[in-house]
Amino acid sequence: MIPLTYLLRFLEEDVPFGDVTSEAVIPEDLDAEAVIIAKQEGVIAGLEEAKALFEHFGVKVELKTKDGDEVKKGAVVIKLKGNARKILLVERTALNIIGRMSGIATQTRKLVEKVRAVGSKVKVAGTRKTLLKPLDKKAILIGNGEPHRFSLSDAILIKDNHLALVPLEEAIKRAKAFSVYKVVEVEVENLEDALKAAKAGADVIMLDNMTPEQIKEVLEALKHEGLRDRVKIEVSGGITEENIQDYAKLDIDVISLGALTHSVKNFDVSLEILH
Amino acid sequence: MIPLTYLLRFLEEDVPFGDVTSEAVIPEDLDAEAVIIAKQEGVIAGLEEAKALFEHFGVKVELKTKDGDEVKKGAVVIKLKGNARKILLVERTALNIIGRMSGIATQTRKLVEKVRAVGSKVKVAGTRKTLLKPLDKKAILIGNGEPHRFSLSDAILIKDNHLALVPLEEAIKRAKAFSVYKVVEVEVENLEDALKAAKAGADVIMLDNMTPEQIKEVLEALKHEGLRDRVKIEVSGGITEENIQDYAKLDIDVISLGALTHSVKNFDVSLEILH
Amino acid sequence: MIPLTYLLRFLEEDVPFGDVTSEAVIPEDLDAEAVIIAKQEGVIAGLEEAKALFEHFGVKVELKTKDGDEVKKGAVVIKLKGNARKILLVERTALNIIGRMSGIATQTRKLVEKVRAVGSKVKVAGTRKTLLKPLDKKAILIGNGEPHRFSLSDAILIKDNHLALVPLEEAIKRAKAFSVYKVVEVEVENLEDALKAAKAGADVIMLDNMTPEQIKEVLEALKHEGLRDRVKIEVSGGITEENIQDYAKLDIDVISLGALTHSVKNFDVSLEILH
Amino acid sequence: MIPLTYLLRFLEEDVPFGDVTSEAVIPEDLDAEAVIIAKQEGVIAGLEEAKALFEHFGVKVELKTKDGDEVKKGAVVIKLKGNARKILLVERTALNIIGRMSGIATQTRKLVEKVRAVGSKVKVAGTRKTLLKPLDKKAILIGNGEPHRFSLSDAILIKDNHLALVPLEEAIKRAKAFSVYKVVEVEVENLEDALKAAKAGADVIMLDNMTPEQIKEVLEALKHEGLRDRVKIEVSGGITEENIQDYAKLDIDVISLGALTHSVKNFDVSLEILH
Amino acid sequence: MIPLTYLLRFLEEDVPFGDVTSEAVIPEDLDAEAVIIAKQEGVIAGLEEAKALFEHFGVKVELKTKDGDEVKKGAVVIKLKGNARKILLVERTALNIIGRMSGIATQTRKLVEKVRAVGSKVKVAGTRKTLLKPLDKKAILIGNGEPHRFSLSDAILIKDNHLALVPLEEAIKRAKAFSVYKVVEVEVENLEDALKAAKAGADVIMLDNMTPEQIKEVLEALKHEGLRDRVKIEVSGGITEENIQDYAKLDIDVISLGALTHSVKNFDVSLEILH
Amino acid sequence: MIPLTYLLRFLEEDVPFGDVTSEAVIPEDLDAEAVIIAKQEGVIAGLEEAKALFEHFGVKVELKTKDGDEVKKGAVVIKLKGNARKILLVERTALNIIGRMSGIATQTRKLVEKVRAVGSKVKVAGTRKTLLKPLDKKAILIGNGEPHRFSLSDAILIKDNHLALVPLEEAIKRAKAFSVYKVVEVEVENLEDALKAAKAGADVIMLDNMTPEQIKEVLEALKHEGLRDRVKIEVSGGITEENIQDYAKLDIDVISLGALTHSVKNFDVSLEILH
Repeated sequence: MIPLTYLLRFLEEDVPFGDVTSEAVIPEDLDAEAVIIAKQEGVIAGLEEAKALFEHFGVKVELKTKDGDEVKKGAVVIKLKGNARKILLVERTALNIIGRMSGIATQTRKLVEKVRAVGSKVKVAGTRKTLLKPLDKKAILIGNGEPHRFSLSDAILIKDNHLALVPLEEAIKRAKAFSVYKVVEVEVENLEDALKAAKAGADVIMLDNMTPEQIKEVLEALKHEGLRDRVKIEVSGGITEENIQDYAKLDIDVISLGALTHSVKNFDVSLEILH
Repeated sequence: MIPLTYLLRFLEEDVPFGDVTSEAVIPEDLDAEAVIIAKQEGVIAGLEEAKALFEHFGVKVELKTKDGDEVKKGAVVIKLKGNARKILLVERTALNIIGRMSGIATQTRKLVEKVRAVGSKVKVAGTRKTLLKPLDKKAILIGNGEPHRFSLSDAILIKDNHLALVPLEEAIKRAKAFSVYKVVEVEVENLEDALKAAKAGADVIMLDNMTPEQIKEVLEALKHEGLRDRVKIEVSGGITEENIQDYAKLDIDVISLGALTHSVKNFDVSLEILH
Repeated sequence: MIPLTYLLRFLEEDVPFGDVTSEAVIPEDLDAEAVIIAKQEGVIAGLEEAKALFEHFGVKVELKTKDGDEVKKGAVVIKLKGNARKILLVERTALNIIGRMSGIATQTRKLVEKVRAVGSKVKVAGTRKTLLKPLDKKAILIGNGEPHRFSLSDAILIKDNHLALVPLEEAIKRAKAFSVYKVVEVEVENLEDALKAAKAGADVIMLDNMTPEQIKEVLEALKHEGLRDRVKIEVSGGITEENIQDYAKLDIDVISLGALTHSVKNFDVSLEILH
Repeated sequence: MIPLTYLLRFLEEDVPFGDVTSEAVIPEDLDAEAVIIAKQEGVIAGLEEAKALFEHFGVKVELKTKDGDEVKKGAVVIKLKGNARKILLVERTALNIIGRMSGIATQTRKLVEKVRAVGSKVKVAGTRKTLLKPLDKKAILIGNGEPHRFSLSDAILIKDNHLALVPLEEAIKRAKAFSVYKVVEVEVENLEDALKAAKAGADVIMLDNMTPEQIKEVLEALKHEGLRDRVKIEVSGGITEENIQDYAKLDIDVISLGALTHSVKNFDVSLEILH
Repeated sequence: MIPLTYLLRFLEEDVPFGDVTSEAVIPEDLDAEAVIIAKQEGVIAGLEEAKALFEHFGVKVELKTKDGDEVKKGAVVIKLKGNARKILLVERTALNIIGRMSGIATQTRKLVEKVRAVGSKVKVAGTRKTLLKPLDKKAILIGNGEPHRFSLSDAILIKDNHLALVPLEEAIKRAKAFSVYKVVEVEVENLEDALKAAKAGADVIMLDNMTPEQIKEVLEALKHEGLRDRVKIEVSGGITEENIQDYAKLDIDVISLGALTHSVKNFDVSLEILH
Repeated sequence: MIPLTYLLRFLEEDVPFGDVTSEAVIPEDLDAEAVIIAKQEGVIAGLEEAKALFEHFGVKVELKTKDGDEVKKGAVVIKLKGNARKILLVERTALNIIGRMSGIATQTRKLVEKVRAVGSKVKVAGTRKTLLKPLDKKAILIGNGEPHRFSLSDAILIKDNHLALVPLEEAIKRAKAFSVYKVVEVEVENLEDALKAAKAGADVIMLDNMTPEQIKEVLEALKHEGLRDRVKIEVSGGITEENIQDYAKLDIDVISLGALTHSVKNFDVSLEILH
């Protein structure tokens, strides 16, 4: 559920004093039909949001596919009918939303499939590295990804900067005392800290910037100590489309990538007025 | 001028109910020092915005460099001093802003320099293809780019969808009658329309998806008709880092790229608490 | 396009804790019919905004005329049907909007017609001298006026205060380098500066507080230097309903008047519940 | 108390994407001094609001006079010192606020003094006929006026439209039963209704659109019935600067004028950068 | 009239990033029917607000009773039909609103009936002791209570803290001079001040923290001085469900209780999905 | 971290058009000192929020105690110094916040201490039954309580209404697949479902409306199946100050009470201007 008020903010920012082009050029009462077309192959997302915006301005919307579907290049994803000025008013904001969300969903799905291709059930997760969280987290879910923390309020993640101020075991102890309803995760950079964290009761351990070999060592040590089943393992840092399968083959739970949301490749989509 | 209220929205979205990690783990009155470090080379941006956010929470900020400077990998760009919880509260939002704005500024500057390298004065422009316009337009300026239209309200740009509804010359006539204070631009896809647009008095003609050869033909035809000096020429569509110099050598005014803002590569930057 | 959220702000400000009169006096489920009547002659405006507000509260609205029409005293401009409390809730806000916008539209049209009456095509423009820009700029357009700059973001206007800090030619040079998509205007107070500005490439020159004679001199000098066709001329300062025709006869492009929006005469309009 | 957030809305509306003129023309770090000067005689208002805006942007503000003072043409009312771009950013919004509020304060004071000149203690009141209530109501108070109702929530005013739906005595009875803390006023158009309203216990009776003679008749009838001391009398409708003294001489309590806020004459004020 | 935007704030606060339970567990297109049931006896309130919220999300709402009705334990107050996720999304916010408003309405009605039971017409009023004023003031009205001041802007109430700074008679004089449209109330703690306040022209006197005996003395003194009919008397402080009838029997006008809104007992209500 | 913008909303709601009492009665430039005094014993909370509000209006604040301290009746908790009108402007909003938050903190601490008194480590938790979540959740933490879920976005809680639509085991399976970072809780009403939930992998089981005897049975059955250590047990429904110790003696993890936030008893606190 992304509130309409959140979506309208983007549009109002794009139109502080009206759409001067349409107001100058297009007759006020002219009606038109239009389609939104995928200009590439991928996982479509953002259709619900586009629909909400067009409908808010009285434009009739027919979804020809739905969020999460894989579409071909050239596919019509939305049909529109209504006042021409209103269609053009919403056009760019709607395309920006679909373009970004589909870009994220497409890349997420692609990585998930790469992981599945080596027989792995490991999840592919985003991070908090984005200024467009409501859109981006929803897009990751649509791409079959794991959304990870939504915000600083919903799970505890003890990172290097916390550990610069408080010893690891003390930090975990405090975190676990805070609330039963918050997962406690700790970011570690070496085997020793991983073991400490597991013993101290962390729910999830994030192995940061480790090679597959280093990770394997940690996993074995955890198993050896009988701790592997007590914790989930997330790996993060330096993972790319190219090397993700090397990580996916490991006995881990989650692979997270900041790039999923901080370096999005836009999905190409356009709106065409029908003659 | 990006209003503080705009920046705070990102932070408030990231912290709907407090930073549970710091509240659980970090003592309330603990002070700390920290630095923000560039983890790559490039053009730094977003420092003013980060400063405004940290200062709003009472953290002392010392800028070690300024927006637009080219920084080396490892450079300290900001020094912070203040309450540890407050530093950690703002950390991710500030890094997200710096990461995105520096990413855009770095890529813009790089393209501008490629253009200058072939002795060209052509401007490199962004578009409206972004949901983070205030940040992105400022970052383009910092990267020495041309911001182009900020919104649907500030210049007239007649595109294919308008021309599907109104004939080109009539559209330009209406646009020019609308206001003396709005530049009138027309997007065309062939020589014939380019000439029509120039004759009809467009201030800027955008040649959409044309090859350098096609553009050259248009430029010559315009010159031949004595129209070249009356209009600015923008080229757009299919232009990349690789081929931008081919366009830059032409007698045009602006090259615009949606990718500058719709497919941003994040600039790597991190915050480190000092021991 | 004036967003509903912008209009609702006025209403919510007028009703922080309900309409105590109607809640005390009018039965909750009482339905009523009402009309909005022009109590004077003029150009009606604000009907779309009034409609949006009444409809938001479930009142049925029938427009009997449309924005921009010239109405006679006594004309019914809107018919309403719905819950009596809701009609009375919106009444004053709707009338305030219609009253102000019609006041501006009426005065703008009157001045435009005075200008046309002497055979002139000069435009009549507003300024940024208003705290109700979205309403006022739309009203000027409805009155056939020129809206001028909407905001500090959409065109460059170098004024005396800028020129107190930067020399005229340098200022114009910087302005023209800023963006292809922004018109560059300069305010000058004498012939010499007008020539300098034209030579430096300003798109528009605003002649501030000059008499028709002084303006004529400037126009002749510009022609003499072959510069007249390269710039638009705006005149501003001291122009009133009484003397506007003296200016309109000159070979200029725009006459702007702060009074159009900073000293509005309300258009008289009232709502009447039908028995 | 006008909240800063309310004032910032005007500024943010005026600067959706930065002040392109200053950003293009004025060096980023340039400091400047400036003064705000009254260009006419009158009652100054809005200085506190202007101060809050400039200070929010780090500009130092020295008030040379205070809200409510009568100033001469040419008087410096504010001195400013700070970053030149910031001064220019706030300039127009601040002047718009001072111009409107001083315009209202000046006209209010003038009418109050006209009333006092005939030895009368009658109050001069505004109405709800404005879209800028927080500014306008404060300006009326500064002009020594009576602010009247702020909103639909703070007093009960039974008008013709209510009386079209509910009989007068019943309406007053319901109104008086609603709350002890709300004044109950009734608008009437003839002697008979005035008497009814007084008998029914209205706190204030508004005599709408009556001549001084008609009002006198009402007053005498009220006295005759021993009701004059039980109610306050407001007169409204058709009262102007020219005829206000005719009303002021009557034994009434309040004269209200919509024009005070719906047809404001701007007070002329300007900002000058000092060389 | 409580604006939808006010109600949506509560919901948006409760769902910053979607309802993860329903999104995980409930199929997206599943429809459901549900009822909202009173789990106790009392006066129901908040139904209009709940209706507005559910309808905003496309859920069909049938009110089985209306605000202000007395309901039995087990009564169905609302029937819902629509998308299951949407019903569950709004559930808690709607129940919180109904629970609080019905709690206040029930307690208000109960106190009013206690007062009526001793043959008294004294009103039972709330205060400004709440952070949820729009909901709470409406709930008091629904419970047949007196809403008292809504805010600091709608009536004048001179309290001990004002009187610590300004003498009582001077304070009343200033208050009465401020506006004809504001009731002037003074809080006093002894007989002497009560008499002073009445003589000085206060509209309402609040007797703070006095016993019934002390109040009686004040009432007699006022009568003796011929002042009783000129003022309304409010008593406040230390009044509870247990002792309210002792006060109600006195010749006073209003009894106010902060506890009505600052110490609300929730009304028990639940939503049940129908199988 | 409760944002200032959140706190200001309460104040702006309380003062739509200024504080008419102070504006009428208190001289504009009068300074004053004041204290906020606890009128009862308990745990104080809300001081940081009150401080932020007073300081926003330029009032100097000295905290004489800090959030979470136990205070005696009569204790001065805050000293204030500044403009008298500003102190009075903020007074009621600040007291409302302190009154509510201290009321919740006091009651939470009392219950926690009752639990500790029988040697138990069980946590005392709030719920989402409040419209003032940011304040209330912080107050619970200050009272040494467990905040539980903040919102619908931060943990998964499968309740009876979900189970009316999806079978328990399927629901848990889906919930666990959703995200590694969300705790999965299930509400059950009988032994059988509790066992099912534990086997299906729920992180927390909420035993709803069970007697201590029934809970004991569940606990024993879980132990018997070797499941007790795999889940946390929350009990909820019908727990009061009187019977909480009966539950606290059980081998459970959390006791949650809606009443902690939906039926708050205000903490008595007042502001006194010092003579």
